[in-house]
Amino acid sequence: MKQYLTINEWSIIEDGFHPEYNKISESVCSIGNGRMGQRANFEEKYSGETLPGHYVAGIYYPDKTRVGWWKNGYPEYFAKILNAPSWIGIDVEIDGEVLDLATCQVQDFRRELNMREGYLERTFRAQLPSGKLVEVSSLRFTSIADDELGAIRYAIMPLNFSGSITMAPYLDAGIKNADANYDERFWLPIAREVEAGSGYITAETKKTAFQVCTGMRLQLEKDGTGVETTLELIEREDFISNRITAPVEEGEQLVLYKYAAVVSSENYANNKLIIACNLALDRAVQIGFAEMLNAQAAVWAEKWQDSDIIIKGDAAAQQGIRFNIFQLNQTYTGEDERLNIGPKGFTGEKYGGTTYWDTEAYCLPFYLATADQQVARNLLVYRYKHLPKAIENAQKLGFTGGAALYPMVTINGEECHNEWEITFEEIHRNGAIAFAIYDYIRYTGDAEYLNQYGLEVLVGISRFWAQRVHLSNEKNQYVMLGVTGPNEYENNINNNWYTSTIATWTLEYTLSALQQVKQSAPARYAELRQILNLDEENESSKWQDIINNMYYPVDEKLRIFLQQDGYLDKEQILVKDLDPSQRPINQKWSWDRILRSCFIKQADVLQGIYLFEERYDADTIRRNFDFYEPRTVHESSLSPCVHAILAAKIGDEEKAYDFYLRTARLDLDDYNNDTEDGCHITSMAGTWMSVVKGFGGMRVLKDQLHFHPFIPKQWQSYTFKIKFRGHQIDITVTQATIKIINQADKPLAFFLYGNPQNIAANNILNISRQIPA
Amino acid sequence: MKQYLTINEWSIIEDGFHPEYNKISESVCSIGNGRMGQRANFEEKYSGETLPGHYVAGIYYPDKTRVGWWKNGYPEYFAKILNAPSWIGIDVEIDGEVLDLATCQVQDFRRELNMREGYLERTFRAQLPSGKLVEVSSLRFTSIADDELGAIRYAIMPLNFSGSITMAPYLDAGIKNADANYDERFWLPIAREVEAGSGYITAETKKTAFQVCTGMRLQLEKDGTGVETTLELIEREDFISNRITAPVEEGEQLVLYKYAAVVSSENYANNKLIIACNLALDRAVQIGFAEMLNAQAAVWAEKWQDSDIIIKGDAAAQQGIRFNIFQLNQTYTGEDERLNIGPKGFTGEKYGGTTYWDTEAYCLPFYLATADQQVARNLLVYRYKHLPKAIENAQKLGFTGGAALYPMVTINGEECHNEWEITFEEIHRNGAIAFAIYDYIRYTGDAEYLNQYGLEVLVGISRFWAQRVHLSNEKNQYVMLGVTGPNEYENNINNNWYTSTIATWTLEYTLSALQQVKQSAPARYAELRQILNLDEENESSKWQDIINNMYYPVDEKLRIFLQQDGYLDKEQILVKDLDPSQRPINQKWSWDRILRSCFIKQADVLQGIYLFEERYDADTIRRNFDFYEPRTVHESSLSPCVHAILAAKIGDEEKAYDFYLRTARLDLDDYNNDTEDGCHITSMAGTWMSVVKGFGGMRVLKDQLHFHPFIPKQWQSYTFKIKFRGHQIDITVTQATIKIINQADKPLAFFLYGNPQNIAANNILNISRQIPA
Repeated sequence: MKQYLTINEWSIIEDGFHPEYNKISESVCSIGNGRMGQRANFEEKYSGETLPGHYVAGIYYPDKTRVGWWKNGYPEYFAKILNAPSWIGIDVEIDGEVLDLATCQVQDFRRELNMREGYLERTFRAQLPSGKLVEVSSLRFTSIADDELGAIRYAIMPLNFSGSITMAPYLDAGIKNADANYDERFWLPIAREVEAGSGYITAETKKTAFQVCTGMRLQLEKDGTGVETTLELIEREDFISNRITAPVEEGEQLVLYKYAAVVSSENYANNKLIIACNLALDRAVQIGFAEMLNAQAAVWAEKWQDSDIIIKGDAAAQQGIRFNIFQLNQTYTGEDERLNIGPKGFTGEKYGGTTYWDTEAYCLPFYLATADQQVARNLLVYRYKHLPKAIENAQKLGFTGGAALYPMVTINGEECHNEWEITFEEIHRNGAIAFAIYDYIRYTGDAEYLNQYGLEVLVGISRFWAQRVHLSNEKNQYVMLGVTGPNEYENNINNNWYTSTIATWTLEYTLSALQQVKQSAPARYAELRQILNLDEENESSKWQDIINNMYYPVDEKLRIFLQQDGYLDKEQILVKDLDPSQRPINQKWSWDRILRSCFIKQADVLQGIYLFEERYDADTIRRNFDFYEPRTVHESSLSPCVHAILAAKIGDEEKAYDFYLRTARLDLDDYNNDTEDGCHITSMAGTWMSVVKGFGGMRVLKDQLHFHPFIPKQWQSYTFKIKFRGHQIDITVTQATIKIINQADKPLAFFLYGNPQNIAANNILNISRQIPA
Repeated sequence: MKQYLTINEWSIIEDGFHPEYNKISESVCSIGNGRMGQRANFEEKYSGETLPGHYVAGIYYPDKTRVGWWKNGYPEYFAKILNAPSWIGIDVEIDGEVLDLATCQVQDFRRELNMREGYLERTFRAQLPSGKLVEVSSLRFTSIADDELGAIRYAIMPLNFSGSITMAPYLDAGIKNADANYDERFWLPIAREVEAGSGYITAETKKTAFQVCTGMRLQLEKDGTGVETTLELIEREDFISNRITAPVEEGEQLVLYKYAAVVSSENYANNKLIIACNLALDRAVQIGFAEMLNAQAAVWAEKWQDSDIIIKGDAAAQQGIRFNIFQLNQTYTGEDERLNIGPKGFTGEKYGGTTYWDTEAYCLPFYLATADQQVARNLLVYRYKHLPKAIENAQKLGFTGGAALYPMVTINGEECHNEWEITFEEIHRNGAIAFAIYDYIRYTGDAEYLNQYGLEVLVGISRFWAQRVHLSNEKNQYVMLGVTGPNEYENNINNNWYTSTIATWTLEYTLSALQQVKQSAPARYAELRQILNLDEENESSKWQDIINNMYYPVDEKLRIFLQQDGYLDKEQILVKDLDPSQRPINQKWSWDRILRSCFIKQADVLQGIYLFEERYDADTIRRNFDFYEPRTVHESSLSPCVHAILAAKIGDEEKAYDFYLRTARLDLDDYNNDTEDGCHITSMAGTWMSVVKGFGGMRVLKDQLHFHPFIPKQWQSYTFKIKFRGHQIDITVTQATIKIINQADKPLAFFLYGNPQNIAANNILNISRQIPA
C-alpha cells in the first residue's frame, strides 16, 4: 500500500517526482477514449523504469505460444491487445544534451490526471547534467469528442541560459509488448511518409493483419508567434520524426503542438487508411488545440452529469470513486458493439485486453444505470454476435444440437485462454451471460430484446447446461462434475453450488422467455423455432426435469449451501487465523497448496445469493455470509463488492463500508502491489455497485426502483445519479435525510425502504431517514 | 497402424521407398550410443517430409516461454534437449544436378537398422530428372565402443553415364527445434575451422551456455584407391563444408568416409573442446572405418549376450522385442550418472528428452536384470545427486524440514514441467523414486546402498508425505487432498488410492531402512542423523501414526479399492461400449470431457497392486482387475505392461498375451499414429517386463529368484536372459519344457512355480512344464 498521490476530489496528482513509483503513476494517470488509450508515459525520452503502453481497441495478436504440448480442445491462440505504434513521443535536446528525467535533477515535478475535463498534464523543472535548467509543461488527451484524435501541447523554457532547443516529435511503430516471449515484434511496418510538419506510419499486425495508420501534424510557436527553425526529417523502416531545432532565449517558451490521429482497418479499408488519417488530422488542425480541449471538457461534463457519485466529508473516498467512474467511462463508451471492457482497460497489457465474465457480472449494472440504454445493450449484442462461435466452441468440446459455451476469454468470440481448469471448466460464465439478458430487461423493460436477440442466446446456453449435467445413479439426481466456480481457488470440483444454481436458473428463465416470446410475438417465435431448430416439447421437458431434480450440495448441520462436494473435508481454518506473512496466498503459496486449503478467492455461494437474493430469507443469507466470509481472502478484485452488498443487505453497515474501502482506492493506493501492471478496470464497476446497490440499496423489482439507503457514519453525505427508463434521478443520502431529484418531465414512482413513493415531474423529494427496525 | 516394414528377426527394414512414412522410418531406424543419437535422416539433401534430429545427452535449453501468466510456484523454465549441430550431412551433385530423392525416380530403395551390429544402412538407385542413374549406399553408426565418435561410409556409382560427382560433407550448427515457438534458434556459433579433409564447428546453447564441438575428417576413395579432386572450402557463420568434386566413370564407385566427433562442455573445459574433438577424430582415423564397425559389432554382441529375448515361432514378435531391447540399450548405457532416459530417447524432440518417473517405475527393472549392477545403481545415484534440488523444490511449495519432492520432469534436478495438475499434484513420482531404492536392493542385495545414498532420499520423501497428508476432522483419518495419480485422466482428486498407498509404503520402508542402517552401520547412522537433522522419535512416531490411520477409499459393495473419492458418482460406461470413432479419447475429446468420464488412462489401483502384489490375495487382485481393466483405455504406452503382468498373475494367459501385443510393436507398426515424433523408449522397458515378469513370472522374494512361466500358445519357445547377483541365467520356455542355464561358476538356488530348485555351477536344468492347477 502506497499513499504518495495527493488527495484531490477531481484529480489524481503526483506532486514531486517519484521515479520508484513511475509505473504506478503511468497506470493510474492513463487516458483513453474507448477507441484508444495510453499509459501516462513521458513524451520525452526516459531511461528510468517505465512501461510503455499505447493500445488501440480491437487490435490484437493471436499468440500461438505453446508450452510443452496442449490438451485436446485447447484454443488455437492466446489473444492479446497489442502495444500499438505510439504517437506521444517528443525527444528533446538542449544544446545537443538529451532531456531525460532519469539523468536530471528534477524540481517541482507534478503529474495530474484531470478527471473532470479528461486530460493529463505534467510540469517540472529539470537541471541537466550540464547545469542548464529548463521548465517544461505538457498537456495531452485522447479526444472523447472525436475518438480518432489525440493532441499534445509540449512547452519548454530555458531558465538559466539561451541556446538551441531541439524537439523531435516522432511516430514509432518499432514497439514491443513487455510480455513478448522472445522480444519478438508483432508489427510489420507497411507505409510511411514524413514531411516538414507532418507524417504518418502504417503498420500491420502479424498473423491478424490489422492495419493501423498513425499520423501527426506539428505546430511550433515561441511565445505565441512563429519561430525560425532548422528541420531534419528522420525516416527509418518503423519510425519517422521531424527533428526541429530553434534558438531560444532565456525565459522564452517554445511550444510544440502535436496532433495525432489513429485509424485502423477495423473501420476503414486498408487503402483508405492514409486518407482517413489525413482527414482526421485536418479536423484536428482546423479546430485547434484549445477548442479540442474545450470539446473534451464538454463531453466529460456530460458524462459526470450522468454518472458522478459525490461524497461529502471524505475526500479520499470522493477521489477513489471518481477515479473508478472516470476509468470506466474512458474505457468503454458503448459506441461500437464490437468492443468490450478488458480487465485492465487501456492501462496495461495484463489479461491481454480481452473480454471476461467481468463484463456481464460486474460492469453491466454500471453502464445500465449511468449511460444511454444503447450502451448496455451493445454489451449484450457483442455476445449475441458471438453466438455462432460459442456454438462452435461447444462443439469442439463435444456438445451438440446448438448448445453454446461462451468463451472464458475472448476478443472476437473465439476462446483464447489456455488453462484447462478455466477454459473448459469455469463454465459459470455462460450463466452470467444469460443473467445479463435478464438484468438488462429487468432494468430497462426492453422485453423486445428477447425477441430480437436474447432468446437465441438463452436457448444456446440452456442446451449447454442440459448436456453438461447427467443423472447420477448413486444420487438419482442431476449432477455437474468437473467444474471451476467463481472461486478459482478450487479447480475441477464436483457440484459447485453456484454453477449448478445459475445453470438451473438459466433453464427456468429460458422456459419463461420462450413463453414470453411465444405470447408477445408469435410470428417471431415461429421464426425462431425454425432458426433454432427447437424441439419445444422435448427440450422443455428435459429442462424442467433438470430444474426439478438437480442436486445442490448443502450441509444440514450448519444449514448452509455447500460450495462443492467435500468442501468440509478440508482443514477448516479462518482467514483471521492465517499468519499475515502468508498473504496474499496467491503470491506466497504454490497452487496445489491453495487448492487443498479451505481458503476462498471470492465466495461462490455468496455470489449466487447476491444474484438471486429474492429467493433467500435474511437468516439464510446471514448464515451463509457468516460461514463463507471468514474463509474468503478476497484475492480477486471482484470479491469485496459482493460482500459489501450482502453485508448491507443483512444490515451490517460497518462491514459493508469495510468491504467498500478495500476496492475504492485499490489502484490509487496500490493495495495489491500490482498497479504498475495497469488498473483493475472491471472491478471498478463493483465499487460503483457497492455504493449504489450496497449503500443505496438500489434494486429493480417488477419494473420499479427500490432503495434501502444507509450512509457510512464517516461521511456527511453521498449522491449517486442513475438513469431509469427515461428518468434521470439523483439520490442524496445524508446522516439525517434522503433527497431524491426526479429530473424527468414525468412523475417517478418507486419504493423507499419498501414503501411506495412518488415524485412529480422535475421535482424533489426530501425525506428524513427513518429506517425501519 | 501401418505394416510397411519387413519382418526380420535382427533388422528393421524399409524395403522400397515410402516417402509418406519417411518420418516414421526416421524414428524407428534411429541410432544412438547413450551419449548422442540421431534420427535416420538422409545424408544427402531431401526436400520431402523429414524431421531432422540429432541429440547430445544432457545438452538442453531452458525454454522460458510463458503463456498468459503463471501460477505461483511454477518452474522457471521448460527444459528441452536440443536438436544439436548435425554431422551426417553430405550434399551430392551429379554434374551439377542435386541428388534429392524427392525429385528422383527411386529404385531398389532399402533402409535397414541392423540391430545385431548396431548400424544403419541405406541403398538405392536414383534416376535424376536429367535421366542420369546412380547407385548409392550409405552405412553409418554412432560408436558405442567410443561414444564420442560416429562414422559414415557413403558410396555412389554412376550407372548410365560418366561425369563429375560432387560430394559436400558438412557440419551444420544452424539447426532449429521443430517445436520452436517462433522459429527461434537455440545455438550460437562460437568457433569454426575448415580445411581440406577436416573441420570443426563449436556452438553454444543460449541461456545454458553448453558448448558442443562437432568435428569431421574426410577420406575419399574411388574403387579403393585415391582420387584426383577439386576442392572448395565453404565457411559460413554456422556451417562448414568441403565441396569435393571428382570425375567418375560409369561403373566406378566413389566412396566418402566421414568420421565425426562430438564432444561437449559436459565433459571438457570449453577451451579444451577443440583439442578433445581433434583427439577423438585422430582415434577414428587411426582405427579406420572397418575396425570401428567391427568394434561396434563386438560391443553389441556383448549387449545381446546379456539382454536378448529370443522368440521362436513368431518372427514379428521376435523383431518387436529385439527392437525394444536395442533401443533401451542404445539410449542409456549407465556410464554417466548425470544422464537418464528420456521418453523418446534419441529418436525425437517430444517430451523434451527429460527424465520422468518412467525411469524408476518402468526402466529400472530392465537395466537391473540385463546390465551390470552399476548401470541401475547410476539411475539411483542420479536422483540422489538431485536430492538438494528436490528439497528446494518442496520448499518452493511450502514444505519444510528437509522434505523432498522430486520433480515430475527434470534434466538437472529442477522441476521443468508446467502443468500444475502434474507438476504440483502428480506427486506419486516421489513414491516411485523411493520404491526404486527398495527394488534395487531387493534385486541386487546391495543393502550398503541405503547407508551410502538411499536413506537420505527415503527420509526426504517420507518427510514430504508426512506433511502432505492431514488428519480430517470428518473422517478422523489422514487424508491426502488435491492429487493426480498415474491415471492422468483425473486431476486434482482427493484420496487417490495409489498415491496414498505408495505414501504409507514409503513411510513403512523408511522406518525399516532406518532400523537397518542403525543396526548394520551405527557410525554411519549417527552421521546421517546429523546430516538429516533427524528427530528420530518424533518423526518416526508421526510416520507410524500416519501408517496406522491412513484413509484409503474402498467400495464395500463391489469389494474393490476405489481409485479416488467419488469415482462411482461418474457415469459408469465400459470401454467396449464406447463408440470406436471416439477413440483415442485424448485425440477426440476435450480435456474436461475426459476428466468427468470414468475412463482411465492407466489404472492407478492396478499399478499399486502390481507394485505391492504380495499384500493381496488372488481374489482381491482379480476383483480389482475385473473392475478397472474394462474402464481403462490404455492411452498411456506405460499402461498395458502392468495389465499383462497382472493378467499373467491371475492366470489369464490370453489377456496377458493380448496386452503384450499392444506394446511389443507399438512403434514398428505405428499403433498410436505418433511414431513419426519418435519412439516410446521408456514404455519399451514395460514390454520387456511383460515377457520377463508377465510370461516368465519372474520375481525376487527374500533374496531369491522365483519363476512362474507360461508361454503364449502362438509361440514355440521364448528365452530371456537375466543377471542376478553374479549369475548369468538363460531361461527358455517351450510349450512343454523349461530350460534354465546357470552360466555362473556357482550353483543357483531359486523357485520354480513355488518349488525350490537348484542348478549346479555352469549347468542346465531341463524340466517339463507342470503348472499347478
